[in-house]
Amino acid sequence: MNRPVVLISLKSPHSFWQLSAEHERALSAAFPDIEFRTASEEDVPHLLTDAHVYFGWRFESSWLRDAPRLRWIASPAAGTDHLPAAEAHSAGVALTRSYGFHGKPMAEHAMGLILGFSRGLFMSQRVQRNRTWWKNDLAEGFFDLAGATMTIVGCGSIGGHLARAARAFGMDVIGVRRTPPVAAEGGITWMHTSVVHQAVSVADVVVDLLPATPATDRFFDPDLFSSCKPRSLFLNLGRAATVDQWALLAALSAGHLRGAALDVFDPKPLPARHPLRLHPRVVLTPKSATLCRTYMDEAVAFFADNLRRHLAGRPLNGLAEVPTTRSPITGG
Amino acid sequence: MNRPVVLISLKSPHSFWQLSAEHERALSAAFPDIEFRTASEEDVPHLLTDAHVYFGWRFESSWLRDAPRLRWIASPAAGTDHLPAAEAHSAGVALTRSYGFHGKPMAEHAMGLILGFSRGLFMSQRVQRNRTWWKNDLAEGFFDLAGATMTIVGCGSIGGHLARAARAFGMDVIGVRRTPPVAAEGGITWMHTSVVHQAVSVADVVVDLLPATPATDRFFDPDLFSSCKPRSLFLNLGRAATVDQWALLAALSAGHLRGAALDVFDPKPLPARHPLRLHPRVVLTPKSATLCRTYMDEAVAFFADNLRRHLAGRPLNGLAEVPTTRSPITGG
Repeated sequence: MNRPVVLISLKSPHSFWQLSAEHERALSAAFPDIEFRTASEEDVPHLLTDAHVYFGWRFESSWLRDAPRLRWIASPAAGTDHLPAAEAHSAGVALTRSYGFHGKPMAEHAMGLILGFSRGLFMSQRVQRNRTWWKNDLAEGFFDLAGATMTIVGCGSIGGHLARAARAFGMDVIGVRRTPPVAAEGGITWMHTSVVHQAVSVADVVVDLLPATPATDRFFDPDLFSSCKPRSLFLNLGRAATVDQWALLAALSAGHLRGAALDVFDPKPLPARHPLRLHPRVVLTPKSATLCRTYMDEAVAFFADNLRRHLAGRPLNGLAEVPTTRSPITGG
Repeated sequence: MNRPVVLISLKSPHSFWQLSAEHERALSAAFPDIEFRTASEEDVPHLLTDAHVYFGWRFESSWLRDAPRLRWIASPAAGTDHLPAAEAHSAGVALTRSYGFHGKPMAEHAMGLILGFSRGLFMSQRVQRNRTWWKNDLAEGFFDLAGATMTIVGCGSIGGHLARAARAFGMDVIGVRRTPPVAAEGGITWMHTSVVHQAVSVADVVVDLLPATPATDRFFDPDLFSSCKPRSLFLNLGRAATVDQWALLAALSAGHLRGAALDVFDPKPLPARHPLRLHPRVVLTPKSATLCRTYMDEAVAFFADNLRRHLAGRPLNGLAEVPTTRSPITGG
């Protein structure tokens, strides 16, 4: 009898996003009844014929045609908006994202960006070649994290990590989500998405961690930016589609926002002379918030745990929501 | 009978370094038997005639001549190397520094500088206008704080604060001092100054918090920099005199150090074309690590506590060491 086949396609120019020979050996040792096959992306379509499970960075909806036995697509990424969730759902194939380990690098990234503004570090780097001394300007503009408020919009597992880091610096944290916990949890004050205007109005720092769904499309619009506290800082480490970039630029130029740090933007990369590249109070990072040297170690551990669940017939962790499109009927 | 006089000279262009009317009222209410007088620096010398205690940013050794009743000079600063400790000692006048509250802003400052390098944020800010995409470079160079080692050289009260912040990100912390605690304390691995070469050799990040004394003059010399772990990061938030700046530049240029962040340097400010200003892997901040909106609130609270001790005849906190000069006789 043939063993079930897990097809893995996890190549990357960076070792920490790639399956190592050691990961392969560990999986084979942990699951002797499974046959693990690794493939480069171009070989995936024809190798899917035998596969029961696929674990990889990319999956094209067209690949489903050639995958009669496929039951489950596992992604090592935190988001699944680049994967064909609806098509997989129709074909009866489960789709899972990964979670629990993106928060660590993202909390480092977010706190670094926040402190870069709050302590005048970005300003210092910008002027250290051209200005004799800039302590007075810096003393006017800096703020203490201790006692300041951070509002995390889309506060899930990653937000929880970030909240812990922020609280270690003495910040108060407000978490906004569609389904807030009933009780206080993790030292976070929870608020429902319906009162997000109130949640951002008291925040010195707003961090956007929203996933990309039809409901979050340009969630940060002119109206929500105008609700932000004057001189507050805006970070987007989630998805570019959740922000109206022109509204963000307008809020920056009006001086309403102190600054912005974006790990995601549209298009990626931005055109050479795009105003977000040129704005003196905008810092852009190249979708690098989740960079982490132990990324694949933790993604493989998450996958192995889920594979055990799959084999035992238990529910998988990280099942993707099937996207719903906005109803075309908007009136009564 | 005249009440004892406390002369206060705490003016600053920045509100948070200045005694407010509210601070004055609070002191007068807490110490009804004391007469508090405030003065601008130019009036201090002739007002010292009646003063028993002086609380201020500056004190010139010549002022001691006109201060027959003076028993104590209290500084709101963390260091006393700008104050005449030896002369005050000879005149029988106590000199105190302040501590316990500089650590909070300095931990924010240090972690911001470290994360600015570790997450490639300074690099991103530098190239976002000129380069299309720089994720691969960043992915080569970044490092995770989680699991990395920070060595704090001159690890006192401020270092303890910094150690807590570093540990919140999962860093291991080594504290180096002349009198290390006997047992592990604050999650810090303690090492004696005599083995500082060993302590820096395992550190991904070295933070210099040494005070300026004859014993720490150019403590970081070519030899100590060469003991640092390859590709490590060096921060100086202490005193410029503790670093041989040319040795630092040589270690940077050789690629031995990943980067450096300096809040102190000599001279201050550096000349316009000084190589430390121009080096692409050096970030300079304008002696701003201790900037904190609640600075004077906490300095006044520290002073009030010490004033209670003074009135009760108990030992003062933060007594300055009397500087000893190196013996001119170096042989047997």
